[in-house]
Amino acid sequence: MPKIITLTTDFGTADGYVGAMKGRILAIAPKAQVVDITHEIESQSVYQAAFCVERSVVRFPKGCIHVVVVDPGVGSERHPLAIKTSLGWLIGPDNGVFTRILDQYPPQKIIQISKNTLLWEAHQSFDGLALFAPVAAHLSKGLSDAEIGNQTESYFRLSFPTPFETSNSTKGEILVFDRFGNAITNINRDTLRRYKNPQIRLVNFPDTLISLRTHYLAQGKEHPLAIVNSDGLLEIAMSEGSAQEKFNLVKGDGVTIEEESLEED
Amino acid sequence: MPKIITLTTDFGTADGYVGAMKGRILAIAPKAQVVDITHEIESQSVYQAAFCVERSVVRFPKGCIHVVVVDPGVGSERHPLAIKTSLGWLIGPDNGVFTRILDQYPPQKIIQISKNTLLWEAHQSFDGLALFAPVAAHLSKGLSDAEIGNQTESYFRLSFPTPFETSNSTKGEILVFDRFGNAITNINRDTLRRYKNPQIRLVNFPDTLISLRTHYLAQGKEHPLAIVNSDGLLEIAMSEGSAQEKFNLVKGDGVTIEEESLEED
Amino acid sequence: MPKIITLTTDFGTADGYVGAMKGRILAIAPKAQVVDITHEIESQSVYQAAFCVERSVVRFPKGCIHVVVVDPGVGSERHPLAIKTSLGWLIGPDNGVFTRILDQYPPQKIIQISKNTLLWEAHQSFDGLALFAPVAAHLSKGLSDAEIGNQTESYFRLSFPTPFETSNSTKGEILVFDRFGNAITNINRDTLRRYKNPQIRLVNFPDTLISLRTHYLAQGKEHPLAIVNSDGLLEIAMSEGSAQEKFNLVKGDGVTIEEESLEED
Repeated sequence: MPKIITLTTDFGTADGYVGAMKGRILAIAPKAQVVDITHEIESQSVYQAAFCVERSVVRFPKGCIHVVVVDPGVGSERHPLAIKTSLGWLIGPDNGVFTRILDQYPPQKIIQISKNTLLWEAHQSFDGLALFAPVAAHLSKGLSDAEIGNQTESYFRLSFPTPFETSNSTKGEILVFDRFGNAITNINRDTLRRYKNPQIRLVNFPDTLISLRTHYLAQGKEHPLAIVNSDGLLEIAMSEGSAQEKFNLVKGDGVTIEEESLEED
Repeated sequence: MPKIITLTTDFGTADGYVGAMKGRILAIAPKAQVVDITHEIESQSVYQAAFCVERSVVRFPKGCIHVVVVDPGVGSERHPLAIKTSLGWLIGPDNGVFTRILDQYPPQKIIQISKNTLLWEAHQSFDGLALFAPVAAHLSKGLSDAEIGNQTESYFRLSFPTPFETSNSTKGEILVFDRFGNAITNINRDTLRRYKNPQIRLVNFPDTLISLRTHYLAQGKEHPLAIVNSDGLLEIAMSEGSAQEKFNLVKGDGVTIEEESLEED
Repeated sequence: MPKIITLTTDFGTADGYVGAMKGRILAIAPKAQVVDITHEIESQSVYQAAFCVERSVVRFPKGCIHVVVVDPGVGSERHPLAIKTSLGWLIGPDNGVFTRILDQYPPQKIIQISKNTLLWEAHQSFDGLALFAPVAAHLSKGLSDAEIGNQTESYFRLSFPTPFETSNSTKGEILVFDRFGNAITNINRDTLRRYKNPQIRLVNFPDTLISLRTHYLAQGKEHPLAIVNSDGLLEIAMSEGSAQEKFNLVKGDGVTIEEESLEED
């Protein structure tokens, strides 16, 4: 069975950088199966990439090799890493892009890719081509850990805000938006389950009660709704529209959950 | 030979939804060959997707599995379908996205995908991941029809306008535009063949006679031309330019064909 | 091992033209491995495609088949070509799209694809589907040169400006930009090596000395820098920003290198 190598970058495809990486991988490992996750991460957005990687990588079979090159610091002192997890290998820069996936699947081994091997060309402006692609290709053919570089103990983490909890309320915030304008928050399914009758509100629109539904068409047009999405996170959405546009939402906007109180009504 | 599963969505790729679907398919059917048709259908445009699917799917070898997830009604009462045709399987929501391809390749069997099987996770906000991807993957491994769900007899059809015909004229209209601004009409090759000397005009520009040509460079710049495209449909185009922009064309604009009359000249 | 066929087009993917090409290839050669280089070349930009093809194709293993369809003259008198090189086959229109790659890997054989064979449908508005895709697919299955068409001796070349050299200076220019706003010039590594202490300047900003660095983060924000990129060309870039935007650069803008003169300081 061919070894799967996935690619996630912010390169776009028109310049040919991604084509070059695919060519380099297939030149080393002609039987590898290269799978595009995306090349349309917003330019140099390590943050957006961290979400994309989390959502995608968890679904792949064990043992795949996932290459992520969103790398504003290419060639600088940030280290190139190859991280072994129970899911498979994660290959990319040590800039936080793997934070979210590693929070779910902790590293079993972290290796700083050595630049002193003969595996790659000495070139510092395009590590995707000169370093990450060949490491992935050689790993798919059985390269040993020791040949990649030296083991290290830590990696750079992005920090994501966690919700603030009281006995009968949760205050979370919007982490990121998707293409449809759905606002994904840091409140997860488990938190939500603690409420019998959760009252969900955007902090900036306290008069609008947002109903918890199971699908996007459950409310009338122009009305917001909340769902627990396929990643287990509370999401603010709108039937046939963009919640982001409708409410002018931005990253960090607050979202609250309170237990419905009988007195209040 | 690996089983081909094609993907057509409006998800874009940056959010990782498509990556998640690919991972899910390969986790179930590691030997499947996943082929991207597009992930750039205009957000929730079932109409545009119907054309894209028609143009693509007819060219694939028999027996492929074609997954289409352009699905504004995800999780609502619209049914998820698996439709067997002489081309292979079509998997997606019952919202009309398969109308055009089914008009050419009628369904041999229509199955409502049951949500009560253990094949998929119970999740209603992302059927692409929770339902369509696993059904496609399991079908590629020999899942039987009965295991997918129950047979049904009908499916939702989008309606596309048909041309109005008289003894010596045809009045059609523009159905859709492509990336190059070519305007694709509902007038087909067979209709056109009934004319000895067809005079083609845009209804809104009756003074401009549009020449029927065999390729896009056949006219000078800024002049419109008509060709019969590779799908057999009459198309209004312009050499080195966009007919859509030049004439401010919109979907539904009329296009007429008349037999050249000697008296008239 | 499956035969690799790469695709480079300006079709986008939403219209289904690329899906149709993939289907046609796989219908003829089900074991072919179709690899996307890009479908996002700027509409009809043969010039941009020439750079993308050069950067990508050189990295692939020998013996692949590279199909490039950026083809404003589709169906007109320009010839469809299949060009054999030491890298593999290049398939596409004779419009200059292969100029840069052929300057590095000269043609071993140039064949005008005959339209009189039974390999393809007679259709002149979409040679990508009717002609280039099937030729590539049949080549991957062992089609002989003679069955493709007749050999010819020349091909159309785009012309790219070369730098103007004096004994102690080089005047080059910007050829193209990438997605990150990096400006790629026609000055290569060998030229640069002739200088002990090269002083690099944009002709339009003679007061700004641009430092030669090894990676993009080497300068402070808002400061330009020069690097030799992975294709061996001098590139003007900016840490965490777009040099193109910052300096309002356009294609053809001059870039000079002079030997640092002690007297001058």
